[in-house]
Amino acid sequence: MTFEAPTKDMLFNIEHLAEWSDVTSLPTYSALDLSDAAAILEEYGRFCAEEIAPLNAPGDHAGSHYENGRVFLPDGFHEAYSSFVEMGWQSLQHPEEFGGQGLPRSIGAAATEILNSANMSFALCPLLTDGAIEALLTAGSDEIKATYLENLVSGKWTGTMNLTEPQAGSDLALIRSRAEKQDDGTYQVTGTKIFITYGEHDMAENTVHLVLARLPGAPAGVKGISLFVVPKFMVESDGSLGARNAVRCVSVEHKLGIKASPTAVLEFEGATGYLIGEENSGLSYMFEMMNSARYGVGLQGVAVAERAYQQALAYANDRVQSSPLDGSTRDAVSIIQHPDVRRMLARMRVLTEGGRAMAAYASGWQDLARHAESAEDRNDATAISEFLTPLVKGFCTETAIEVTSLGVQVHGGMGFIEETGAAQHYRDARILPIYEGTTAIQANDLVGRKTLRDGGKTALRVAGLIEQTERELSQGSQQAQAVAKHLGKARAAFQDVVSHMLEHGKQDPTSAFGGGVPYLMLAGNLVSGWQLGRALLAAETAIELGKDPGFMAAKIASASFYADHILIETEAQKARILGGADSLKAMVL
Amino acid sequence: MTFEAPTKDMLFNIEHLAEWSDVTSLPTYSALDLSDAAAILEEYGRFCAEEIAPLNAPGDHAGSHYENGRVFLPDGFHEAYSSFVEMGWQSLQHPEEFGGQGLPRSIGAAATEILNSANMSFALCPLLTDGAIEALLTAGSDEIKATYLENLVSGKWTGTMNLTEPQAGSDLALIRSRAEKQDDGTYQVTGTKIFITYGEHDMAENTVHLVLARLPGAPAGVKGISLFVVPKFMVESDGSLGARNAVRCVSVEHKLGIKASPTAVLEFEGATGYLIGEENSGLSYMFEMMNSARYGVGLQGVAVAERAYQQALAYANDRVQSSPLDGSTRDAVSIIQHPDVRRMLARMRVLTEGGRAMAAYASGWQDLARHAESAEDRNDATAISEFLTPLVKGFCTETAIEVTSLGVQVHGGMGFIEETGAAQHYRDARILPIYEGTTAIQANDLVGRKTLRDGGKTALRVAGLIEQTERELSQGSQQAQAVAKHLGKARAAFQDVVSHMLEHGKQDPTSAFGGGVPYLMLAGNLVSGWQLGRALLAAETAIELGKDPGFMAAKIASASFYADHILIETEAQKARILGGADSLKAMVL
Repeated sequence: MTFEAPTKDMLFNIEHLAEWSDVTSLPTYSALDLSDAAAILEEYGRFCAEEIAPLNAPGDHAGSHYENGRVFLPDGFHEAYSSFVEMGWQSLQHPEEFGGQGLPRSIGAAATEILNSANMSFALCPLLTDGAIEALLTAGSDEIKATYLENLVSGKWTGTMNLTEPQAGSDLALIRSRAEKQDDGTYQVTGTKIFITYGEHDMAENTVHLVLARLPGAPAGVKGISLFVVPKFMVESDGSLGARNAVRCVSVEHKLGIKASPTAVLEFEGATGYLIGEENSGLSYMFEMMNSARYGVGLQGVAVAERAYQQALAYANDRVQSSPLDGSTRDAVSIIQHPDVRRMLARMRVLTEGGRAMAAYASGWQDLARHAESAEDRNDATAISEFLTPLVKGFCTETAIEVTSLGVQVHGGMGFIEETGAAQHYRDARILPIYEGTTAIQANDLVGRKTLRDGGKTALRVAGLIEQTERELSQGSQQAQAVAKHLGKARAAFQDVVSHMLEHGKQDPTSAFGGGVPYLMLAGNLVSGWQLGRALLAAETAIELGKDPGFMAAKIASASFYADHILIETEAQKARILGGADSLKAMVL
Repeated sequence: MTFEAPTKDMLFNIEHLAEWSDVTSLPTYSALDLSDAAAILEEYGRFCAEEIAPLNAPGDHAGSHYENGRVFLPDGFHEAYSSFVEMGWQSLQHPEEFGGQGLPRSIGAAATEILNSANMSFALCPLLTDGAIEALLTAGSDEIKATYLENLVSGKWTGTMNLTEPQAGSDLALIRSRAEKQDDGTYQVTGTKIFITYGEHDMAENTVHLVLARLPGAPAGVKGISLFVVPKFMVESDGSLGARNAVRCVSVEHKLGIKASPTAVLEFEGATGYLIGEENSGLSYMFEMMNSARYGVGLQGVAVAERAYQQALAYANDRVQSSPLDGSTRDAVSIIQHPDVRRMLARMRVLTEGGRAMAAYASGWQDLARHAESAEDRNDATAISEFLTPLVKGFCTETAIEVTSLGVQVHGGMGFIEETGAAQHYRDARILPIYEGTTAIQANDLVGRKTLRDGGKTALRVAGLIEQTERELSQGSQQAQAVAKHLGKARAAFQDVVSHMLEHGKQDPTSAFGGGVPYLMLAGNLVSGWQLGRALLAAETAIELGKDPGFMAAKIASASFYADHILIETEAQKARILGGADSLKAMVL
């Protein structure tokens, strides 16, 4: 099964949805041109298709293995990672100060999606490194930055996030790992961490563990957690590697999917660590970084959906079975000609395109949040960007499950046979609504921090932006008007739900939060459909200008199908939230 | 993970939903009492929980293996199957004439569900034997019945269905296997069959293969297919086993789930076969039997959903994480107290209960279809029973995917670890909307054979029965009235869709059939919600009589939650069918 990066769709999104003209009018990005984005993504797409994608199925089959403290990755992973580092792909979106290429998020996001489509298990290693870089940039001292960042940005070293413990999953208040300050200013870190992605491997010469732990006498709960950097090998003052630190891998998990990526149990046994930022502030640094990590997992959802779609589409074109229902021939035809196979592929395609469009839109706001010139603009962009994060994470990962499941279904019986490859995507996708915070955790974030905290201001700001698109659509073509109608209904449902949350959030949190996931799914659906609506407008303009009419016509068709088939689901979500709280409370489980 | 058969819910359904009083007023079942059903199901539940369920996870882990023509099943399967046969469980619903117990379908269905909850991989062997028994009862000659049925009904021999070939999956017109008549009246069967469940194993002393093949000069397409019985070991005239027949297993598949159950590729190399019924009529016999086999797969959906629910519920009660959102305590609590975990478990529970209720209702009509005294009553019951079959198969298997996926989600990160067991259900369930006809095939059956063919008569008959329940509900309690409201809306949506199908089915089949799966999901949802509405009425009556108020209150709560959260999805399905055909056609894939 070959894979082709959807660079055309990505570039369309970067140009038309990711606030590209605003971003490139910032001083930081003024030298950047769309052709740069195209050159980078096309080159990266080729690399991932040729070097990384072919390792996906064999990696799943072989898995990663633990033996006596060491972890063995599938064949080809070492070489591929070396090429990846050599070509500088880790550094795309990181600051030039530490050797990065300093590209905007919109390009970085597209690259992340491409790599994850090619091979989610492989891509997790760079994704975790991105997270470690973010955390060190956010709160690391100059000395720590100087010690670690350059080698992380180049990919020479890799990063990990050590949060979870057996008793502390979603609830980090229960963390028990401890750190004690030594006379030399370092800390001794002790405890067991589980679910550590790429916690042990030998693709890179060093691994930089970021670890949450408690200091003696620290306040109970989340306000007593500090963040430490714990290198696998000590880093000497000249930058060379020293002795092995007191952290070891004691096992790796047997998982449903992403089998090539090692998920380690790490034992810290008085390992030497260095405090990041202030004592007892670890969780707030983690939260800073988490928006970015969660957004990255949302991209993984789009990525695995894209891969599943490409595979199902190829099979549906190839597999000949049954004559068409319209009686046009008595011969068996490609199954893509059967209406329900079309319906499944259409759902797969528009859920993927919609998620990608939403993620691209969010990436524009991320760039503005970092680099806009006025503090007001940065705050404004931050609010919108952070509002969108749980939507991208929650909606794109939940839909990835549906899309990969449809991918199996399109294959019929062959989809259930592992050699076909469709089942791997279904297995791989299942982790996405769980890690970096389950969908419920995202929904709590959306309801609590992103809606109630500012009294619905950002939510209504977004609704206002959507109304603007509705107005433009309703002055357009027949298709545009039809999309406007569905979009308007969905936006109204969203506003009703926001009002409901504001009304009930404080006095009846159980009801409000019981509707959290439906609210998240409604909002994610709405924003994806909205962005496809904006895409439709851009596509119609492009057609008038004679630009790539085939691609643009397909984009319009996707927006229409999305509106008719997916946007309409928002009504049921609204009904559940507004009318379903009592029966949820009354349920006997 | 322990499993407990939901016999109380099953007996409630048998009594109140499965037309029990009509069925037991038939001469065939007049001696039967509800306490008989209770005694049988409780005994069977104990057997399955103790002997069969513990083999589920180890069987998945070990899988079945092929070596040199032989298939090796996981440890414990042989012994368990021997007990199963010894205790007479295979014979429950089969005719007394051949050693069966002749129990009604409602009891047989409950038993099938229990066995599949305990161990889907194990249960497939008896399920396929049930199918072979049905086929031989339908069309076998007296001699063939005398030769095979008694040993199949006892479970001493097992049965298989050989339909699929590499080029002929959903499209049986493409079957190439051939059969040539010999001078002695037997046939030589030659060809390759794939996806043959329990096609090779040694739990039983003989395997009875039912095989579709073509005779020389047979008409092209499905009208040229004949059905043969091909024993693994020849059966001598005295009933003893003779030489091995010319059929051999050449491999078994590596599958996403149901790994303990061998899925064989069988090579027939001039194997001796015996014609079943008339030449070239094989497919019509298969269709007779298929309604029953498809119904059985629907039960598997309910079964795996029940197992996943029990496991998730136990975990949610056990796992302590985070303090409650209502601030009632600062301590971490069992996650079942968190609103979204409740929401997920509630969805899992009511989708399972709803599917079980629909299946129980259908089983009552199956009994009436076979044994009602007048031909008119039998025809009437047949029409309803056959209308319900694609609903049970399609809806209960599609929802099984959602329920098992939620089961993983409730477990959080632990759900993704194979040792937890939640992932197995998610993998096992994925075959259900595929085998015995994909959901699209069920939808084609619903649209074509079950709706268009009788001009919507049966569909509207069902709508009329639902209206009757609505009237009863709307005269009842507040909860009953609320359910009546949602049920009425869903039933109206169903009627709109039926009208749409009748209008467009002939002149624009692509549009009509493109809405087939949404129609099936709407109808399955409606009938499940309707049966829970009937259950609510029965539960309210029981409470008035002081019968088991705890169980009855839970039933009422489930009906309410189902109406508020699931029945409302019918609107979106209707919108897709009535308003989504053009955008489906326009999609560029």
